Amino acid sequence: MSKTQVVKVKDIEIGGGQFVAIAGPCSIESQSQLDLISECVKNSQAKILRGGIYKMRTSPDAFQGLEHEAFNIVKEIKEKHNMPFVSEVTDPRQIEELYELVDMFQVGSRNMYNYSLLKELANFDKPVLLKRGFSALYDEWIKAASYVTSQGNAQVVLCERGIRTFESATRNTLDLNSVAYIKENTDLPIIVDPSHGTGVRNLVTPMALASAAAGADGIMVEVHNNPEKAQSDGFQALTPEMFDHLMKRINTLTQALRS
Amino acid sequence: MSKTQVVKVKDIEIGGGQFVAIAGPCSIESQSQLDLISECVKNSQAKILRGGIYKMRTSPDAFQGLEHEAFNIVKEIKEKHNMPFVSEVTDPRQIEELYELVDMFQVGSRNMYNYSLLKELANFDKPVLLKRGFSALYDEWIKAASYVTSQGNAQVVLCERGIRTFESATRNTLDLNSVAYIKENTDLPIIVDPSHGTGVRNLVTPMALASAAAGADGIMVEVHNNPEKAQSDGFQALTPEMFDHLMKRINTLTQALRS
Amino acid sequence: MSKTQVVKVKDIEIGGGQFVAIAGPCSIESQSQLDLISECVKNSQAKILRGGIYKMRTSPDAFQGLEHEAFNIVKEIKEKHNMPFVSEVTDPRQIEELYELVDMFQVGSRNMYNYSLLKELANFDKPVLLKRGFSALYDEWIKAASYVTSQGNAQVVLCERGIRTFESATRNTLDLNSVAYIKENTDLPIIVDPSHGTGVRNLVTPMALASAAAGADGIMVEVHNNPEKAQSDGFQALTPEMFDHLMKRINTLTQALRS
Amino acid sequence: MSKTQVVKVKDIEIGGGQFVAIAGPCSIESQSQLDLISECVKNSQAKILRGGIYKMRTSPDAFQGLEHEAFNIVKEIKEKHNMPFVSEVTDPRQIEELYELVDMFQVGSRNMYNYSLLKELANFDKPVLLKRGFSALYDEWIKAASYVTSQGNAQVVLCERGIRTFESATRNTLDLNSVAYIKENTDLPIIVDPSHGTGVRNLVTPMALASAAAGADGIMVEVHNNPEKAQSDGFQALTPEMFDHLMKRINTLTQALRS
Repeated sequence: MSKTQVVKVKDIEIGGGQFVAIAGPCSIESQSQLDLISECVKNSQAKILRGGIYKMRTSPDAFQGLEHEAFNIVKEIKEKHNMPFVSEVTDPRQIEELYELVDMFQVGSRNMYNYSLLKELANFDKPVLLKRGFSALYDEWIKAASYVTSQGNAQVVLCERGIRTFESATRNTLDLNSVAYIKENTDLPIIVDPSHGTGVRNLVTPMALASAAAGADGIMVEVHNNPEKAQSDGFQALTPEMFDHLMKRINTLTQALRS
Repeated sequence: MSKTQVVKVKDIEIGGGQFVAIAGPCSIESQSQLDLISECVKNSQAKILRGGIYKMRTSPDAFQGLEHEAFNIVKEIKEKHNMPFVSEVTDPRQIEELYELVDMFQVGSRNMYNYSLLKELANFDKPVLLKRGFSALYDEWIKAASYVTSQGNAQVVLCERGIRTFESATRNTLDLNSVAYIKENTDLPIIVDPSHGTGVRNLVTPMALASAAAGADGIMVEVHNNPEKAQSDGFQALTPEMFDHLMKRINTLTQALRS
Repeated sequence: MSKTQVVKVKDIEIGGGQFVAIAGPCSIESQSQLDLISECVKNSQAKILRGGIYKMRTSPDAFQGLEHEAFNIVKEIKEKHNMPFVSEVTDPRQIEELYELVDMFQVGSRNMYNYSLLKELANFDKPVLLKRGFSALYDEWIKAASYVTSQGNAQVVLCERGIRTFESATRNTLDLNSVAYIKENTDLPIIVDPSHGTGVRNLVTPMALASAAAGADGIMVEVHNNPEKAQSDGFQALTPEMFDHLMKRINTLTQALRS
Repeated sequence: MSKTQVVKVKDIEIGGGQFVAIAGPCSIESQSQLDLISECVKNSQAKILRGGIYKMRTSPDAFQGLEHEAFNIVKEIKEKHNMPFVSEVTDPRQIEELYELVDMFQVGSRNMYNYSLLKELANFDKPVLLKRGFSALYDEWIKAASYVTSQGNAQVVLCERGIRTFESATRNTLDLNSVAYIKENTDLPIIVDPSHGTGVRNLVTPMALASAAAGADGIMVEVHNNPEKAQSDGFQALTPEMFDHLMKRINTLTQALRS
């Protein structure tokens, strides 16, 4: 097993031995929504805030994110709660405008093969959270990371988020083999997204625990104060109460395994 | 979440709250081999012994198991070490002869859809370990179990053993979502086989831990005293030392999560 | 490309250059049903009759076929219309009783890995139609065929029937690459089942044509006089009129390609 | 079945009843290479020339295409042979510079979900050849097309190029069900790429024939004068002689089916 390289998101270390939770809504919907969720997840010991500004949606008619409208909301809320912030970049031309706003650029599953975007991110000094393409081989994922790291920006964190299989009772098949494989064969930190990896609210907590036990360096979880009314992916969002319970269980587990 | 039904394999309970390890060689190769491995895995707190008598092999030219030659070996060793024994049945005509020998019938992944075999097993009073077909939907797996349970034999334990996907760096993709899904939607106990679920020795331990964290009722692990010389699947077998380490870690984890 | 071995089903040759259509209902439901469909498909130039006696069904509560009740029906109808008959065998213990009834034993997709069944079929002198497991590698399929052929019964015809993928708009993904691959790498004849390969009535005809163009030696098609009332798989059955149209198109195509 | 909309690539119609072949090298490597191949494929009745300028490669160390160096080559050769030209665009920032050079923009499989790129292409008046993502659902593919068509550019041709499955003997699994499905459910023209769809030279011709029989409006085929020395994907390229043979067979088949 290789020694994991530490990636810093502001003052939060990923890969350094502390299990890191990234949490927040799928999409940023309003200032009050982001404020409320941020407060909750911070109280439950999430270390990094997530929230979608530009959304990748299957249909052009679906909600595409607040886009520029979200910028001021993010600025205020991340300052108020003093949390680093990660959000998805979907186009190389967005990088500059997002640069001041985000502390880590997220590259989504559908953009893992977007080598133009990856090459561009290599020119910046911000960490990149690289989600696995939902049908990407480990080898393709590792090589996609090297599109960023081989050009100078060594700050890449991988994120397993489930793969597409024949099974349809879950949204994706969360592949935790990948966590053990990446740990065994690379020095990249890796976190897990059990929200997309299951697509079913009640399966998120057991899969988050399994991720920690498999050796992941953290998780990214969707939390919403009112999942039924969420503008995207509400069916897989945890309530703040569920997230708090999850964090307590994770803490118990990671402390036991560390000893 | 449903309450899990308890299945008894002799005096060992699966689904009753204790995490149960089933261990042993892929194939029974000789008396001394089975004796040595049984002693090791018992010392490491495995509760049930496994060992292949009839093997399902892709090619008719591959080693097909010791078949009848293994019968006396099994009788002696399971008595000597006082361990319940599970082995695969591959043909309805084998059930009667295996009945006295095994304490649980295993139905392998390639036979999950063998409804003739399942209907026949419904007529006996021995528990059945039903592995998931490597491309079976959860729903098909649950319905396959009902081929046994709907006829009177209610003693079925499911076993997740990985599914077939595009990824080829691992032998199968271990789908731990299935554990959480089965726990949420059925009352069947479920264990995990991380040996076939990864096909890579060094990935077995993290995936066994992940299985426990996901809520599985146990694991089934291949252990071999000399994996390089094993007649089948040596690449995924743990050494007795690795298995002992695994069991200590599992114990730490399950105790922490139970508290 | 290897020369294809010819398999004879009574006086019908598969693999000998003539494109052979096997047609009939998914399940035999009654004498009048089989009689009517047989007459139609024979008039449209189908050469072999198909019809399920023992059905493999996901749920134990689904219709399992007429079983013994179908025996006399089959005897009368195949004699009346003078057509060879193929039907699925799902258990090695059925072989003897089916031996006099069928002219070719069909091994279904879910039994491709049922090596006990294949080994038993090797002892008989009837041709075997071996469907591809819905997640079977070409190599596994070819090796499964060798469980029959290596023991003396060289009369095996492969049948591509679609594989399980992430796509759910069709019941299976018909993999016609397999036809070209089998032709290139083996001497086994191969036919295609576009009914299961699509699971959608309106896609059967174009895929049957595509199968012929890819080089298949024949097709197996489900035809039902009243698809809406069929006891199984009615949604993918052609009406006799659709089948007649299909056969005319196939004939045009195969004649053109032969010239 | 819907009536297919006709897309014009200069004076060549796709979807209008004539089966259209697009051919050329995977990557443009030199002027003499493109010149030679263009002459061959035109003589064999290919109607549109293809050739990669910007390549999507798994590894940043692999050949990425000639990029700007190819521009003058393309200008000369397409004029000399009077053939419309299609090439892949991998970044929205390339559209303007490619606009004068290409007669159809190709969006590759790995960019099917690159909605930024698709939205940008909607602003131009050039046809778009949209390859199916190698794990894309039909529905996602159709909706991806609508990112272009819903904004005004109605000139979209779909291209089936194989999907990723468990089978590894072929590079991809060519899914010809998609051709019949798209014809049945949309009015978009669809062509097939049997080169990527098989990844095996000897399987390209039978799969091209199968595509035509399934109802496709055309094919896109990789042809190289010296496949063993090709800078990318030589193993799946046809020689000019093989391509010529393929075109004669296709012609026979499509004429027969039209009558």
